[in-house]
Amino acid sequence: MKYCFGVDIGGTTVKMGLFSTEGELLDKWEIPTRTENEGNAILPDIASSILKKMEEKGVAVSDIEGTGVGIPAPVDAAGVVQSTANLGWGYKEVKSELQELLGGMKVEAGNDANVAAMGEMWLGAGKGEKNVVMVTLGTGVGGGIVIDGHMLVGENGAGGEIGHMCVNPGEMELCGCGLHGCLEQYASATGITRLAVRRLAENGDETVLRGKKLNAKVVFDAVKDGDAVAVQIAETFGRYLGEAMATLAVIVNPAVIVIGGGVSKAGDVLIPYIEKPFRQRAFFADKNTRFALAVLGNDAGICGAARLILG
Amino acid sequence: MKYCFGVDIGGTTVKMGLFSTEGELLDKWEIPTRTENEGNAILPDIASSILKKMEEKGVAVSDIEGTGVGIPAPVDAAGVVQSTANLGWGYKEVKSELQELLGGMKVEAGNDANVAAMGEMWLGAGKGEKNVVMVTLGTGVGGGIVIDGHMLVGENGAGGEIGHMCVNPGEMELCGCGLHGCLEQYASATGITRLAVRRLAENGDETVLRGKKLNAKVVFDAVKDGDAVAVQIAETFGRYLGEAMATLAVIVNPAVIVIGGGVSKAGDVLIPYIEKPFRQRAFFADKNTRFALAVLGNDAGICGAARLILG
Repeated sequence: MKYCFGVDIGGTTVKMGLFSTEGELLDKWEIPTRTENEGNAILPDIASSILKKMEEKGVAVSDIEGTGVGIPAPVDAAGVVQSTANLGWGYKEVKSELQELLGGMKVEAGNDANVAAMGEMWLGAGKGEKNVVMVTLGTGVGGGIVIDGHMLVGENGAGGEIGHMCVNPGEMELCGCGLHGCLEQYASATGITRLAVRRLAENGDETVLRGKKLNAKVVFDAVKDGDAVAVQIAETFGRYLGEAMATLAVIVNPAVIVIGGGVSKAGDVLIPYIEKPFRQRAFFADKNTRFALAVLGNDAGICGAARLILG
Repeated sequence: MKYCFGVDIGGTTVKMGLFSTEGELLDKWEIPTRTENEGNAILPDIASSILKKMEEKGVAVSDIEGTGVGIPAPVDAAGVVQSTANLGWGYKEVKSELQELLGGMKVEAGNDANVAAMGEMWLGAGKGEKNVVMVTLGTGVGGGIVIDGHMLVGENGAGGEIGHMCVNPGEMELCGCGLHGCLEQYASATGITRLAVRRLAENGDETVLRGKKLNAKVVFDAVKDGDAVAVQIAETFGRYLGEAMATLAVIVNPAVIVIGGGVSKAGDVLIPYIEKPFRQRAFFADKNTRFALAVLGNDAGICGAARLILG
């Protein structure tokens, strides 16, 4: 049996997994992310944890295909990061530095959203497919695009930033990126809250949402209970997201669009709200594109990182 | 020296080129496209023309890396076409059939718009780059996307169909694809004519365009002469195209966007009309994306087809 490691670096913890190259998750664990001192300890900590695990499991270097790493920042095709928001790193040659720390082991690195898409393609909702889009609906909207089995990295690691597709040029509020009307402003958890606040301010319609602390979970719980106003909010959310996915599909022509992130915990109720406007707007060649909920949860990162090693 | 052939199949003629693998176009010629009898003669004609050229030039099979083919239809990753509008072909396993006709020579096949993008990347306006978008403004709007040196093919060969990005959901006229408000309805040669007709009908403003048979060339000639109404038409065209390219860039993160096709013969005057709205709408990571006019003209197809062979 051959093995590979998948590493998912977050701002607080580093998630790590040992996989067979066949796709079996054999062990997983976490170490803290030491972001102090410009994050200088992060890669050495990862390397020593990997080497310790190899010793613990009695796995020889010759049986390891390599280590893949997901990073919360744009990562270019050479495995280089220019700066990070949460790790303390400025410019960092992640791939070559970690490779040296691991005694020359093969290392690949990618942006965490792209890597999560690779994970869902390998072992999750996109299993068996080679053209997969993953949309992560969390505090923001992240995107990962896999084309013919490979991550779409782009010129400076910013491929697949679908949260910043413009879906409403008339929006007055600024997005965090400095533009107006980005998908993220409507389809993220905070975006859904914004839509709910706006809808409730529109008129005094009766709804179970009134008086509650609004968030995406509260809205979709009310949708499940058949609340008419909550359904309208879900329709607005779904229209922005579904129409954006139709535009994305014209460009990328994916087999499946995987919906993940905290908002996706609402479950199957989400999908029709996204799929209906998608079908109405989709180019004929994309009419068979499927929608699916992500299934790997927090393991998507380590799975996809390990998958990077398999080419 | 090693060689490869590039073949660009059109509805009337098949363009063919012999290249060195270093990128030198050594010879080019054409044969008629015999579309009768379900186009059954097309691939045999191509094969015999290639074999004849090898004999004529005294090139041995062992010196040929292979033959690439561009086809005016969606082509999947296996080199299979489901149907064609202009060649007579229904389902056709182009790659494997031509490979057999050429005695086992390596063959690759791709959609002509994607292949043209590969050509501009290899020997044209995108030379030296690996992430290239090509927009072909002709009767319609074609698109080709190259990511990390490879064509974006998509699940059923429909990747890069950027002419059918929705840029104006409120459009009343139907696009040829059955949708409303596709980029093609505004940025193609016929789209520019439509914009001009609409603008002239709006009011009676004086313009050199009035009374003329309107087309893209007439409009951009008037732009060069400083005609205020023509400039407004160019601004509308550029806004649709530039903003669509900003959306595309968020997804693909290209180094360069190459503008080709008949409309691009207007020359450098086009670029600022596209680039200004692009810059206003572009995500920060795409702020360095360049615009350039295509330089290969009708040779883009044979160049890109030959490039397919080089991986």
